[in-house]
Order: sequence, then structure tokens, then C-alpha cells
Amino acid sequence: MSDATVTSGVAEDEAAFATPFVKCLLRLIRAQDSYGLWEGKTDAELLADFIITKEQRRAIPIIGDPDPDVLWRLEIFYAAVGLAIEERSGLMASPIIKVSPEGFGRVVFTAGRLVVLSKTLRDVHRFGFETFQKLAEADTKLVDAAIAAIEAYPDVARA
Amino acid sequence: MSDATVTSGVAEDEAAFATPFVKCLLRLIRAQDSYGLWEGKTDAELLADFIITKEQRRAIPIIGDPDPDVLWRLEIFYAAVGLAIEERSGLMASPIIKVSPEGFGRVVFTAGRLVVLSKTLRDVHRFGFETFQKLAEADTKLVDAAIAAIEAYPDVARA
Repeated sequence: MSDATVTSGVAEDEAAFATPFVKCLLRLIRAQDSYGLWEGKTDAELLADFIITKEQRRAIPIIGDPDPDVLWRLEIFYAAVGLAIEERSGLMASPIIKVSPEGFGRVVFTAGRLVVLSKTLRDVHRFGFETFQKLAEADTKLVDAAIAAIEAYPDVARA
Repeated sequence: MSDATVTSGVAEDEAAFATPFVKCLLRLIRAQDSYGLWEGKTDAELLADFIITKEQRRAIPIIGDPDPDVLWRLEIFYAAVGLAIEERSGLMASPIIKVSPEGFGRVVFTAGRLVVLSKTLRDVHRFGFETFQKLAEADTKLVDAAIAAIEAYPDVARA
């Protein structure tokens, strides 16, 4: 991890949109557009609500209840993580997400009999990423951890 | 399993209330009685809503949305199943339940890295048991399956 501040620019954003993870996220979002209302929207517009800058984050109360929109983004994000795990491992890793009305919760990915990933969720009402680039990289650590678990217990993941 | 019809009587009910599973369920219910409103209630009264007779079940529409009360009973029931698994295995098996607004969902119990139990939920709006005796026996199959999984993968359950 680097502490360098990421400067968000158009070129960086375009690079972010071209990553497999963000492409997958966009596919999942557009798949829910049953009525074609978002057809004219750009990738940046569709992903805009996933971005919360430091200033925006500071403006959101520390304690808050997640609204349906942020829960929807959370579900889509972890669905995309599940697909990224599947792409690398060949195993379907289905997420099960549980969030309390106060915004605390847990997401668990299972494959076969194996818990490939388990993560505590906090501050769900402030779920978001500082830049598109950070969003594009957000799956890496999660998928790496899941793959490591699958490699440690291959037979359980296929049980 | 027996196909014999269970006749519900006072003696049978008392026997049901004395089983470790129902005792645990009652403890969990009474633990949520912060204001002592249920202190005067009998065990039968506290568990009454867990019972749905065949006639009552027939009267409930096949498709329906689960209300908060039935979701609360579902959570308490599976929390008690988790404690029963813990009692027999010595491992904490925490349930994570996810139910769609239409009453379909999944409950997953994990211990360490092991999925000790995974169950599809259907018709959650009709969640209930025919008699107290059936409620008292409802944990057995689930706990047996969980214990079998833990015995098959003891190291994963402790990972």
C-alpha cells in the first residue's frame, strides 16, 4: 500500500473503467436497468454514487442508518467481488450480506463448505471509495484473501 | 422419522418445554424482554406464535411477505440452533440469515472457516411448527448435520 495521494483525472478514470472489476460492476448495474432508463448514461455517471471524497465523507454524520440506495450499491459491489473470485478460482463464491438497520453487519462468501471470505461491515451509510481508481482496486485484497483460502483448503471449497 | 400424527396435550407440551432446545429458545426470548412486560407470561404464551397448525397454515396465502414479527421468530429460532451446535461441538456457530422481502432466503452457520450448515429458506411468512413437540425436535436434524460437517472437517472448523 502506498500513502501517495491519488489525483483523479480523466485519464486515470478511463483506466479505472477499463479494469475487469469495474467492467464487471458496470455490467451488473446495467443488467438491472430493465426499462433502459440508464442507456444514455456514461460509466462515470452510473458509478458516481460509489465515490465519496474525503470532504464528502467528513460531511456525512458518523452515525447514520443506511438507505436502500447505499445497500443496493453494497450488494452490487460484493456481487462483483464474488464474480471476480469465480473468475480466478473457477468456483462460484456466493456472498451473503447481513446489515443491521444501524449499518453494521457482515458479508460472508462461501464456496462449497468453505468460508472463503468473511468481512465485518461498519459505517455502511458511508460506503464508498475516494476515487474511481480506488474503486477499481477495491476487489484486489478481497479476492487475494479468498484465493488464498481456497488454495489452503481446496477439497473443502469443492465439497 | 415417523408419520404418526402428534396429538398435542398438556403433558406433551410440558415435556417439550423441558427439552434443552426449547429451554434455550425461551431464555433467548426472555432475554429480549428489557422492560419485563412478559414476566407474567407462561412458556406456552411466549411460544404460541411459533405454532402454526395445519388448519392455520392452510388459511395463510401461499405467497406472502414476511412481517417483522415472523422474521424476529426466525432469528431467535436459528440463534437457538446455533447455541445447540455450540453446546454439542464446543465451537461457536454463528448464523447469518438473509431473507428477501418475498420470504425467500438462506441461513448459513459458520465455525472457523467451515460452513457447518447452509439451508435455503422458503415461505418465511408461514414459518412455524405444528406442535410444541415438533418445535422441540426441530433442532435435531439441523444440529446433527452441523456436527457431521464439523467431524468431517475438524481442522477447518477450528481455522
